[in-house]
Amino acid sequence: MQQYSSQLLERAVQEFATLPGIGRKTALRLVLHLLRQPAERAEQLADAVATMRREVKYCRTCHNISDTEQCPICADSRRDATTICVVENIQDVMAIENTQQYRGLYHVLGGLISPMDGIGPSDLQIDSLVERVGQGTVSEVILALSSTMEGDTTNFYIFRRLAPTGVPVSVIARGIAVGNELEYTDEVTLARSILNRTPFEGN
Amino acid sequence: MQQYSSQLLERAVQEFATLPGIGRKTALRLVLHLLRQPAERAEQLADAVATMRREVKYCRTCHNISDTEQCPICADSRRDATTICVVENIQDVMAIENTQQYRGLYHVLGGLISPMDGIGPSDLQIDSLVERVGQGTVSEVILALSSTMEGDTTNFYIFRRLAPTGVPVSVIARGIAVGNELEYTDEVTLARSILNRTPFEGN
Repeated sequence: MQQYSSQLLERAVQEFATLPGIGRKTALRLVLHLLRQPAERAEQLADAVATMRREVKYCRTCHNISDTEQCPICADSRRDATTICVVENIQDVMAIENTQQYRGLYHVLGGLISPMDGIGPSDLQIDSLVERVGQGTVSEVILALSSTMEGDTTNFYIFRRLAPTGVPVSVIARGIAVGNELEYTDEVTLARSILNRTPFEGN
Repeated sequence: MQQYSSQLLERAVQEFATLPGIGRKTALRLVLHLLRQPAERAEQLADAVATMRREVKYCRTCHNISDTEQCPICADSRRDATTICVVENIQDVMAIENTQQYRGLYHVLGGLISPMDGIGPSDLQIDSLVERVGQGTVSEVILALSSTMEGDTTNFYIFRRLAPTGVPVSVIARGIAVGNELEYTDEVTLARSILNRTPFEGN
């Protein structure tokens, strides 16, 4: 392990190197860049990270990331509150919002059912989804999960849980190549897969 | 430009995206990683960056990065104070220290002479080098600059400035491929190029 002549530098490099995809060489490059910049730049980065981690909230309705108790999407009265799009995580909300093709609300599960990783339905926001749909104002639930085994399992589980409510459940069209992650799909394909959603066939 | 449902998130992403080699997609990935970690992780990263930028110093003798007025290398009485190795920046000090083949001191110029970039001798720590060598305790100056046009120009300028002192000037052996940066040279080549240094031929 390389030792630097400054413990302050060493500590900053170590912290950056804990981030995914950042090795010690890259971490050193980032830290030396911050050293060359005016002091305010480093202060701003530090403050932005600390403030975000301390103050960011999750919407009590859809569990999307938010600065307030209710996220801007749920709070927007121009959006169609009768449609709920179920996604795995907040990146997926961002990806779908980016297509500008969807005007309903979301429900963020916080993951997918994955027995291999020890993630069961109770670890996800599925009970809160069933409760939300059961309140009677929802006329359609769109399942927009990744086209993987975990996504299919989760789709099926949610479909069974929602069946008693009688609310129609659809899935986004499989324009997405099988095995691909939703988050990295191009916008045109993703937009089309939302517009061409099909009724979910449980059996 | 993509808008997020959290301004706190947006601000953190923007700050990371100002770092070299980090785009908005990567910045978002890093920020979401920090959100998933315990809050202390983000606090520690923020504190390490802010503290480093606020408290780090540069050695008054060799201008290497340091936590104190004098860097650990200059302060180490076991090192050979009669030999000074001239390098472009602190990464180069780290690279040479890593070879464990050099026991003398350093002098960090802070850059190379580059008329194209508007960097002249007065922008670098060359006057302080001449003064340091002129004090009479130095018996050899090793020029360890990158093998580029700017490196060669700087070598030649320093050689001319040091000529009146009568102190022998050497350059590290050109085991380094011409055009390559010192910082990215492998340790064996770099170590050999220090051991096989040759007298500098000014004309």
